Amino acid sequence: MDAVIKVGGSLAETPEVLRDVCNKLSELAEKNPITVVPGGGRFSDVVRGFDQRFSLLPEVSHQMAILGMDQFGLFLSAITPGSIAARKLDDLEKITAEGKVPVFLPFNMMLDEDPLENSWDVTSDSIAAYVAKRLGAAKLILVTDVDGIFTKDPKENADAALIQEVTAAELLKLERRTSVDKFLPKLLSEARLDCYVVNGKYPTRIIRILEGRQTICTRIV
Amino acid sequence: MDAVIKVGGSLAETPEVLRDVCNKLSELAEKNPITVVPGGGRFSDVVRGFDQRFSLLPEVSHQMAILGMDQFGLFLSAITPGSIAARKLDDLEKITAEGKVPVFLPFNMMLDEDPLENSWDVTSDSIAAYVAKRLGAAKLILVTDVDGIFTKDPKENADAALIQEVTAAELLKLERRTSVDKFLPKLLSEARLDCYVVNGKYPTRIIRILEGRQTICTRIV
Repeated sequence: MDAVIKVGGSLAETPEVLRDVCNKLSELAEKNPITVVPGGGRFSDVVRGFDQRFSLLPEVSHQMAILGMDQFGLFLSAITPGSIAARKLDDLEKITAEGKVPVFLPFNMMLDEDPLENSWDVTSDSIAAYVAKRLGAAKLILVTDVDGIFTKDPKENADAALIQEVTAAELLKLERRTSVDKFLPKLLSEARLDCYVVNGKYPTRIIRILEGRQTICTRIV
Repeated sequence: MDAVIKVGGSLAETPEVLRDVCNKLSELAEKNPITVVPGGGRFSDVVRGFDQRFSLLPEVSHQMAILGMDQFGLFLSAITPGSIAARKLDDLEKITAEGKVPVFLPFNMMLDEDPLENSWDVTSDSIAAYVAKRLGAAKLILVTDVDGIFTKDPKENADAALIQEVTAAELLKLERRTSVDKFLPKLLSEARLDCYVVNGKYPTRIIRILEGRQTICTRIV
């Protein structure tokens, strides 16, 4: 597998951007074996709200949030031409061999294997990293609605600068919230996986990453 | 099975009411074989929003919305003492035999059997009716946040009166939206199932229905 590509739920806030990304992934899949992992977006946000109001056990909100990824995955598959929603890791290679995009729905696998900490520090970023590790993928690409990880929150600070490259160990030391989940750096160092955080608004950046060329993004090494 | 009890998602808007209902169901299950079917509530509402913004195929939003029922079901199971979340119809009798409440998560069954029209006319009401039919349950009880079905929308009309009894055929003829889904009357007449719409704010009404006694609710015969 060339890459596991997580499509962030926030992209659904700009339908034309999301449709563009999905069409591009569909084209890319004709030549490159790639697997899409869905984010949670609004589907997981509802779970977060229930957790806040009802103080659920971590394993309950974890499971509910991953069902949210399956919902977003069914949706992504519906708007991505030539894609196939799949629930088994073993099915993915067969789908990519046909030049199609598998959209992996992680709930069943996560219920069976439960490999990660059950907490809100583990979101679809870490789950996508786990899938990439299991598939032996060369790259993990997190497609989101910002250019990458910044020195400060770019939505609040005009002088925030894009971090072009960072090690998983450095990221682990950062105290503040970034555009990736808290557990991800730990998983990346264990799996020795190269990870890229990239803006879905510019799908050519995704192509450049797949081709191993320079582009605007954050690379976590 | 004495009854299939659908717990409507709207009850989560008043946590203390919902917790009260769940505790009562837990007590009831010690003596009465009952199965809980979850509503969709906010989890399905998010799907409705996506459907409106992206014009999804009916089968896609149908599947996504039923995943929303599984989410609400995991949640209900977490706040209902002595309950067990179950994905197979065959497992329910064993759970009730132990005096526990099974909370049925319908996604897998609905994906396998796909027995109902894929549209927004089919919501958790119809799915609960289908489960009741499959289980040969004596009663279907829809627990919601209003006293039953009214002659007019009670939230907008002060002179709206509660309908105490209505036939499925009469309900089918009503043009306006009621507190139950459009497809339900059709299913009820086919299954020859007695259905009760009742307010979760007063859990003793649920008990009275189970005991075959008079109470404030709408009975669909």
